Amino acid sequence: MEHFADRLAALTRQKGNSLCVGLDPRWQLLPEEIRARHTGGTLQDAASAYQEFCTRVIDIVAPLVVVIKPQSAFFEACGPSGMAALASIISYARQRGLLSIWDSKRGDVAETASAYADAAFTGFSMNKAIHPIWDADAVTVYAYLGRDSLEPFFERALRAGRGVFVLVRTSNPGAPQFQDLSCEGQPLYVHVARAVGTWARAALGACGMGAIGAVVGATYSEEVARLRNELPEVVFLVPGFGAQGAGPAEAAAAFRADGLGAVVNSSRGITFSYHPSEARWEQKIEAATKIAVDALKAATPMKMLSQSSAI
Amino acid sequence: MEHFADRLAALTRQKGNSLCVGLDPRWQLLPEEIRARHTGGTLQDAASAYQEFCTRVIDIVAPLVVVIKPQSAFFEACGPSGMAALASIISYARQRGLLSIWDSKRGDVAETASAYADAAFTGFSMNKAIHPIWDADAVTVYAYLGRDSLEPFFERALRAGRGVFVLVRTSNPGAPQFQDLSCEGQPLYVHVARAVGTWARAALGACGMGAIGAVVGATYSEEVARLRNELPEVVFLVPGFGAQGAGPAEAAAAFRADGLGAVVNSSRGITFSYHPSEARWEQKIEAATKIAVDALKAATPMKMLSQSSAI
Repeated sequence: MEHFADRLAALTRQKGNSLCVGLDPRWQLLPEEIRARHTGGTLQDAASAYQEFCTRVIDIVAPLVVVIKPQSAFFEACGPSGMAALASIISYARQRGLLSIWDSKRGDVAETASAYADAAFTGFSMNKAIHPIWDADAVTVYAYLGRDSLEPFFERALRAGRGVFVLVRTSNPGAPQFQDLSCEGQPLYVHVARAVGTWARAALGACGMGAIGAVVGATYSEEVARLRNELPEVVFLVPGFGAQGAGPAEAAAAFRADGLGAVVNSSRGITFSYHPSEARWEQKIEAATKIAVDALKAATPMKMLSQSSAI
Repeated sequence: MEHFADRLAALTRQKGNSLCVGLDPRWQLLPEEIRARHTGGTLQDAASAYQEFCTRVIDIVAPLVVVIKPQSAFFEACGPSGMAALASIISYARQRGLLSIWDSKRGDVAETASAYADAAFTGFSMNKAIHPIWDADAVTVYAYLGRDSLEPFFERALRAGRGVFVLVRTSNPGAPQFQDLSCEGQPLYVHVARAVGTWARAALGACGMGAIGAVVGATYSEEVARLRNELPEVVFLVPGFGAQGAGPAEAAAAFRADGLGAVVNSSRGITFSYHPSEARWEQKIEAATKIAVDALKAATPMKMLSQSSAI
């Protein structure tokens, strides 16, 4: 299958932006209109409501953006039924031409990581048959256990045209506690970032970027700019756009001069841009998506992007 | 509910050891006898086989050990049906008087971590009803995002008598890449360990230990001994006993002088101690469990444990 970075670059050029819409469903925040159709009070009812909500969000954003990012925790919180809804949503996003990042922040020793990576990308093998599980285009992972713990993700990602985003610098208030510890002259997150650079460069796509990317929170724009400069081959997944406080200028620091190199995520600012009682919640989501796309376009080197030729 | 460390200490004294049996089911390694009863070739068949296998393992080890540790990845690899099997297995372990550690290595920003922690411990809230999800006694987590990302786990753990094991020093070959980086005069893992110590001391049980523990691989016995000495209030979850290379002497370094303070895990050495074609696989598992318990008892300060009074 085509290299993940090339798939992402082609879609970014086609859509003229690289916005990612985060899908973080929570029962109390769903439109009342949807909740009113799933009133059985079971976990299956909640999962069905999540699936309906996310499917309708995908219908709205599919013509506008490039990626969706379902947050695994909110589906897991709804149990096995929620996980089934997650798989359906990822499949539906693919039908609608969107890439999906399974935001699950996995990571374990190699043999265990192989099971996570099979679930993420290549499926469950039984009696010579392969059963897809989450079948996402990319996954988020921790690097704390070191390279050998990530190798199963990398191997499957490269084999199947998928991507892996390694947590480097997050956007939460407590991120500095460990990520900014000074280790042998550099903050810890810079060590992780440089390792990601090495891993990305090992298998570049035609666009010059790797399938191994980095999660870099936009709320720390100086760090983003520094990493962008040092790691031109690494795609950044940038959370924290909108509701978490980062604006377009902060997110813009994550892009390369050619307009590629970053996926910028907004979750709550788009998918909970309405009051649950509003009947016209879909229009609110569409408007919020367009505002986010326009803000990102205005701040990022989209001129370069529109001038560049297809890869 | 009673403090997690006190529940663990009471069971350890009752059983005379603190062995944990890791449940890492894989289709190809299951006894043929079980696979032969689940031949439909669907994920539900695989999940049913996993559930039968783990239930029968629990029946064997329940009189002998203290804890089971299902590895989430192998259940997730089997999809939503696998996750339903996971929940059933944790519930069955509780019926049989065992504690359970959901080894999922979760961790995310606080709002997302709340969803993971609800799933782990307190359940899904909908329309004033609470639905249990995994309902484990403890969970494993990453600390890379800092204290605020762990607070939702800690809060629910203390409220519900559950435990949280923070990844400090793992037992895989690549662990040193980041965990041993020298940060402000100490390896990174020591910084994480000291933070765990602070978090554990904030709410000690009557036994003098906290509900916030540390994952410390037994393959690095010098590190284990150093951390044991520095952090008497922290319960260690020690993977790597048996198949991953650590012997009883290495694991023994994780215990306090009173015989408490560590949960020592063995997975493959117990649950895959037979050839899949063997009819008498249950006897093999029972024998392997008894050998592991005896080896651990011989190496650890069990004399102290048996002399100590109940808390």
